[in-house]
Amino acid sequence: MRKIIVQKFGGTSVADTEKIKNVAKIVIKEKENGNDVVVVVSAMGHTTDYLVKMAKDLTPNPSEREMDMLLSTGEGVSIALLAMAIQAQGYDAVSYNAMQIGIMTENIHSKARILGIKTDKLKQNLKEGKIIVIAGFQGVTEDGEITTLGRGGSDTSAVALAAALNAERCDIYTDVEGVYTTDPRVVPHASKLKEISYEEMLELAHAGANVLHPRSVETAKLNNVPLRVRSSFILNDLGTLILGVDKMELNKPVAGVAQDLSQARIVVCDVPDKPGVAARLFSQLAKENISVDMIIQSYARKVSNTNDIAFTVDKSDLNKTVSALEALKNEIGATGEIEVDENIAKVSIVGAGMIDRPGVASAMFETLASQGINIRMISTSEIKISCLVDKDQAPLAVKALHTVFNLDSDAVADVKGDLPDV
Amino acid sequence: MRKIIVQKFGGTSVADTEKIKNVAKIVIKEKENGNDVVVVVSAMGHTTDYLVKMAKDLTPNPSEREMDMLLSTGEGVSIALLAMAIQAQGYDAVSYNAMQIGIMTENIHSKARILGIKTDKLKQNLKEGKIIVIAGFQGVTEDGEITTLGRGGSDTSAVALAAALNAERCDIYTDVEGVYTTDPRVVPHASKLKEISYEEMLELAHAGANVLHPRSVETAKLNNVPLRVRSSFILNDLGTLILGVDKMELNKPVAGVAQDLSQARIVVCDVPDKPGVAARLFSQLAKENISVDMIIQSYARKVSNTNDIAFTVDKSDLNKTVSALEALKNEIGATGEIEVDENIAKVSIVGAGMIDRPGVASAMFETLASQGINIRMISTSEIKISCLVDKDQAPLAVKALHTVFNLDSDAVADVKGDLPDV
Repeated sequence: MRKIIVQKFGGTSVADTEKIKNVAKIVIKEKENGNDVVVVVSAMGHTTDYLVKMAKDLTPNPSEREMDMLLSTGEGVSIALLAMAIQAQGYDAVSYNAMQIGIMTENIHSKARILGIKTDKLKQNLKEGKIIVIAGFQGVTEDGEITTLGRGGSDTSAVALAAALNAERCDIYTDVEGVYTTDPRVVPHASKLKEISYEEMLELAHAGANVLHPRSVETAKLNNVPLRVRSSFILNDLGTLILGVDKMELNKPVAGVAQDLSQARIVVCDVPDKPGVAARLFSQLAKENISVDMIIQSYARKVSNTNDIAFTVDKSDLNKTVSALEALKNEIGATGEIEVDENIAKVSIVGAGMIDRPGVASAMFETLASQGINIRMISTSEIKISCLVDKDQAPLAVKALHTVFNLDSDAVADVKGDLPDV
Repeated sequence: MRKIIVQKFGGTSVADTEKIKNVAKIVIKEKENGNDVVVVVSAMGHTTDYLVKMAKDLTPNPSEREMDMLLSTGEGVSIALLAMAIQAQGYDAVSYNAMQIGIMTENIHSKARILGIKTDKLKQNLKEGKIIVIAGFQGVTEDGEITTLGRGGSDTSAVALAAALNAERCDIYTDVEGVYTTDPRVVPHASKLKEISYEEMLELAHAGANVLHPRSVETAKLNNVPLRVRSSFILNDLGTLILGVDKMELNKPVAGVAQDLSQARIVVCDVPDKPGVAARLFSQLAKENISVDMIIQSYARKVSNTNDIAFTVDKSDLNKTVSALEALKNEIGATGEIEVDENIAKVSIVGAGMIDRPGVASAMFETLASQGINIRMISTSEIKISCLVDKDQAPLAVKALHTVFNLDSDAVADVKGDLPDV
């Protein structure tokens, strides 16, 4: 049986008709390799920005339903153009939007989750030898409402299609050459990883590496779909393969170093040391849809029988969080200040290889100490250690850790950017 | 029960966000009049040209299926923006594309006919007090293929929706103020008609008046939907109402004068005068999808027992027609030349009132003769008389006929253009 390869091209890869012709060549090459090809595309370049601008001209708060109607037209353009470009090379191609395929989602606008994908039409078309071009980022509800999948949506569409079709692999073509050991803009000697596990990729993504949205990696992990991230402009490089940790050789304890500048630290001081206080605090924040990242509770002070609760939230949630805490202060009996610090960064090392290797954490702390970097908070998971440090010390921390854990490349990375596209 | 008004706005009426705000006001005013409102919109201004240009960048012959996929995105943008603009004024609005509604068409791309429209979702939304905004020009097949309706498609969508919903009226908002007795660019004293019958409008449309595509008028006639053509920019003018001839008072024998410069005349000389020759000739042209308009067969010449067959075709079909005739010449035994004349114009007078009034034809011929205009061919229907004249004499013919049949207005018409939008 022929193998199915799902390819995904982001907005920068289809930004104009010349680039669409280039994409058609990549698609046809995969077909010529003897594979069945399903292609997922995003909207062309800055289409989404243009559509959003027109909406904002009309109203500051457009309804999410109509925004989904509006934005979904963007991929409608790119799929038809790519199908034409493939046909122009003499290959049979057909484009479909999410409604035509049946990419079924929840009935939630602007950030729906995929519930299932109908595959009969796709299988029939592949059987007929057609290359299929599908609109990413969009879905449809049972009632025929058009939805969009939110940030990283097209990646998620591609991975979900690969899972539904039992594809051999899902190739994410983008404007970076793969996944790097750290942001090459911070460390020019960052090296490109040949392989990385889903788990490491997830930790790197959450830690601020912007190549793939965590949702698409989670979907790939859940369905065990091998993912390849590669450049649509540099074709002699295979990029980075993301796969199950069981299939990898773990040569190094640490796969990558990440920094995240998007968090702010909040300390609620002098909170009574009694059961249920922390639960009340964080359940209220959850109710207000505020995601909390690192949490530290200090030892209770013997004299006052109080402690401090410190945690980090995304800066965009900071005002909402402070308001919520002010409202809660009396109820939980906190007598101290609510301290806010936006001048922080989270620096993380990630690696499935650290599981069986003791001493990784201490090596990290020693490295930071040797550079005179004060650690404000620490949190760990099985394959990640994160330290909160002063924002202006973050690049120094990343560079030092990158060197200590043997990640430096001889070459200087040539990377254009590391922003994801929708 | 509340009455349903269907409104249609063409591409020039929704060309930018400022114009879309203006359209929202018109829509809301109709809602405030106590009616249920269903709005059909075309793609914004030059969107279609822009999409076609990108397609042509990729291939000189894009597939019709993918062109339909591509072009249908245009209305996807305008419906969402108009719904937002209506919502911004505090009214409940919802947009739908043809697939979501179920505007069912034949499985033919680029010029499908509407087979039926599902109304349950629409009726439910109207019941809930919503203003519904629907994508014109597009449809969907039973298999979920996206189609477009070809020229005049959005007008046809609007009329078909009005018929399906049993609407009180279908208002076509455009960039002209209504239907004129003749093209105001030819006769500045052309007057705007308050009413015209479907039949007259059809003859005027076929005769070259470009306000409405004949298909939409035919659909309106078939379903007895009153149509109003009016300007989206000049709101104190009700435009022209198009309705059944039985509901009109026919004060004048002639309602309008039209000229059509798009035809070419072909004469096949010295064709044997025997049965079946004309049938063979015109059935061949029909097979090649060439529409023939006026046909004249001369009396047979006694000596040679031959005659000449003259007819007109659209200039765009001229080359195809001549090739077909050259191939047929021997078979039908034509011994003379095939003469072609592109330097002609068809001038027509149209009026349901001429049915009971003898002398209209002779008045037309006398008028043309008095101006020294030679008539090359004549054809008539119940409510139309057309004469083929030299192209450079056409404006003179139109002006003279306009005056003779009492159509001149005291005022000079202020009209921006008379081009239809898709």
